[in-house]
Amino acid sequence: MQQSFITSACSPTTPFPLNNLPYGIFSRNSTVDSTPAVCVAIGDHVLDLSSLSSLFPQIFTGPHLPAPTAHSVFSTPSLNAFLALGKPAWLEARAALQDALSISPQRCPDLKNATAEQHAELLPLHQHVTMHLPAEIRDYTDFYSSKQHATNVGTMFRGPENALPPNWLHMPIAYHGRASSVVKSGTAIRRPCGQLRPDPASPPSFGPCRLLDFELEMAALIGGPANQLGDRVRVEHAGDRVFGFTLMNDWSARDIQKWEYVPLGPFGAKNFATTISPWVVTLEALEPFRKPPQEQVPQILDYLKAGPDVRGHCTYDIHLEVLLQTEAKETPSKICTSNFCNLYWTVAQQLAHHSVTGCNMQPGDLVASGTISGTESSSFGSMLELSWKGSKKIELVNSKAAEKRTFLQDGDTVYLRGEAKGDGFVVGFGECSGQILPAFG
Amino acid sequence: MQQSFITSACSPTTPFPLNNLPYGIFSRNSTVDSTPAVCVAIGDHVLDLSSLSSLFPQIFTGPHLPAPTAHSVFSTPSLNAFLALGKPAWLEARAALQDALSISPQRCPDLKNATAEQHAELLPLHQHVTMHLPAEIRDYTDFYSSKQHATNVGTMFRGPENALPPNWLHMPIAYHGRASSVVKSGTAIRRPCGQLRPDPASPPSFGPCRLLDFELEMAALIGGPANQLGDRVRVEHAGDRVFGFTLMNDWSARDIQKWEYVPLGPFGAKNFATTISPWVVTLEALEPFRKPPQEQVPQILDYLKAGPDVRGHCTYDIHLEVLLQTEAKETPSKICTSNFCNLYWTVAQQLAHHSVTGCNMQPGDLVASGTISGTESSSFGSMLELSWKGSKKIELVNSKAAEKRTFLQDGDTVYLRGEAKGDGFVVGFGECSGQILPAFG
Ligand SMILES: [Ca+2]
Ligand SMILES: [Ca+2]
Ligand SMILES: [Mg+2]
Ligand SMILES: [Mg+2]
Ligand code: NI
Repeated sequence: MQQSFITSACSPTTPFPLNNLPYGIFSRNSTVDSTPAVCVAIGDHVLDLSSLSSLFPQIFTGPHLPAPTAHSVFSTPSLNAFLALGKPAWLEARAALQDALSISPQRCPDLKNATAEQHAELLPLHQHVTMHLPAEIRDYTDFYSSKQHATNVGTMFRGPENALPPNWLHMPIAYHGRASSVVKSGTAIRRPCGQLRPDPASPPSFGPCRLLDFELEMAALIGGPANQLGDRVRVEHAGDRVFGFTLMNDWSARDIQKWEYVPLGPFGAKNFATTISPWVVTLEALEPFRKPPQEQVPQILDYLKAGPDVRGHCTYDIHLEVLLQTEAKETPSKICTSNFCNLYWTVAQQLAHHSVTGCNMQPGDLVASGTISGTESSSFGSMLELSWKGSKKIELVNSKAAEKRTFLQDGDTVYLRGEAKGDGFVVGFGECSGQILPAFG
Repeated sequence: MQQSFITSACSPTTPFPLNNLPYGIFSRNSTVDSTPAVCVAIGDHVLDLSSLSSLFPQIFTGPHLPAPTAHSVFSTPSLNAFLALGKPAWLEARAALQDALSISPQRCPDLKNATAEQHAELLPLHQHVTMHLPAEIRDYTDFYSSKQHATNVGTMFRGPENALPPNWLHMPIAYHGRASSVVKSGTAIRRPCGQLRPDPASPPSFGPCRLLDFELEMAALIGGPANQLGDRVRVEHAGDRVFGFTLMNDWSARDIQKWEYVPLGPFGAKNFATTISPWVVTLEALEPFRKPPQEQVPQILDYLKAGPDVRGHCTYDIHLEVLLQTEAKETPSKICTSNFCNLYWTVAQQLAHHSVTGCNMQPGDLVASGTISGTESSSFGSMLELSWKGSKKIELVNSKAAEKRTFLQDGDTVYLRGEAKGDGFVVGFGECSGQILPAFG
């Protein structure tokens, strides 16, 4: 664990030690009309990078992120301007902040030596700030990169012999999603209404979704200068375009999806809401948790092949959990335990494939993993899989009312949590949650 | 025809009479660093609305678009701010501009009476300006609303008995597309590379698309305040969210599409480029060309039903053409003649369906019609249909070289054109074109 002069950042259980330093957008609860700006999380505090770069410009000395640039990109209500600068600036910012926050700064002790008043101003507590969506999402894409998830869904809908679509092992398949409805953690989710056709022998009807679900995912936030339209991002450079990851819940209306999705893919069943966590954990913070990708058989095409050291061509040992809190319960019940390592395609491969036809990838794009299911039934990342299409009840432990679920009910709150465990420290993602509101009548 | 003091706007053949007044974003070729701003087309000229609202603020007097607001929204490099104001402001702008440009202004003669120098400044010729993308596209959605197109594609790929997907007559089906690759007319289109699997018995290969196609479409540009996430836009109000229409070419890589699209829909086969025309023709300009929607059988669900007077619940008599110019030819050959009336679902129904699950529709969203094919084979809106999957050659008339085509070749330029024919006048859309560049090696 890297030691910080901020005591709470040195706890072995804080999700935000100096090793992490995830980025987010915050505003102060105390100040009327506090303009959102960029911060990093450090222990129990957030560090206000807009004020920091104004008060101590000497912290930002590098060629890619000189102080005026730092102050300009950190004083906006989204990460987009910082994302656009690209990897050299991200690395400089991390080095500068890790030094300034360390217990013995080598380059710039000014933050450590600041007055108590300055500390209070620069380092508000988490409970005194409100977190916002970390970026203005440009385009949002959802991959389908867990082999077990694709196998589960395929088995349920097409039978075990045709479980994986024929293209699945040859390319990371994906669909374009709806960017406008990507919302921050804590946003209440209205149960959608739409067309349902539970009985194919009867005409479709209109009404509230009855099979409302979550999907446990993680999403990469893309940065760096956009590739020109017509050019592609090669797999060996794709990782340079990945700033970091958030948790993501791709809320899904299974009954609406079933009736609408052939032949153009999911649409209204997905576009009503997608929740992401407020903190973007950088690829640098995840590097210690890097693992080799899953073995890919059959042989993949050259444009998807990369060496073992290519940035982002890997998986990460990130523990993931889903908890469900019903209105009758005081504490949430864990209903799924999974891991980012359950993804078959790497983020470098996803970006290489996404752009291979010439699609321009822009700062602020959100590229999601797809539902992350493992092989154990307790690791399935959706209620569709956990309840096996509603055929078995999911037990909610520690529920006084001995409640069970197949799909989500009104009032239920879903929490996604993620953390990577280092030697004596934890790299956490914060929370990704949302409560289901009843459908409009 | 409404008479303007601008002579060229009174020609019976100009696409831009006073009846039209389409909006676009222009910059001056003469001025170094001319900042793009909002204009309308009028005859051979464009009217600079940024300068107009500064020089003659008295033209903009209404409660929804007072002069300072007008100047602010017209001095930005996209229509988004104007779109966000909504229909009351759009109607005021149209009334003010139609008066100011008329041959006998009733409310404000100042533009007509301006000096020659002022006219030259405010009304540059089309050839002295460069047109830009009319809006910063937020989310882009592509519907599939021509019954004949869906039937043609279904017949080719699934046989005549299962031509239309089971959901097709019950809802306007659609997929989310890629917003970042929506480009302005004239942008060269790089032939995409990607995964192909022409022979299902052999493994997929990587290479340039061999079945490159256009799709003749029109796209609605959305405005008005965004509906809250979780709310829907009802069919009777949906038309208030439609600012106007552009022509759109949804470039498509048929071989890439065929291998990738099951089960998540088209992805890389579409996300490399989508071209729209520079001029947005407003719903008001199209009102004289309004026609009742096609009969919809079987009965549709209530949320899609609307009365005959509902804005946007209609079709429009807009003649559409596709022309193909090869490198060997001097003039383009017409290869398709279609009409907007070939759409089965109305734009009001498309928006009602798009938002029915609670999707928030934002100013700057682009909502495309899908390929507009009629019943005649000469009206099919893609080469896939015109060549019937490549099984018959498309003759290029007036070609010295007696050229034929099944799909697009490098160097080919595709032009989409659209016009509505009034009594002694024409409402035109300008051009939507793009030339195919060879794939990168
Ligand atoms: Ca998903
Ligand atoms: Ca299309
Ligand atoms: Mg979603
Ligand atoms: Mg397209
Ligand atoms: Ni503290």
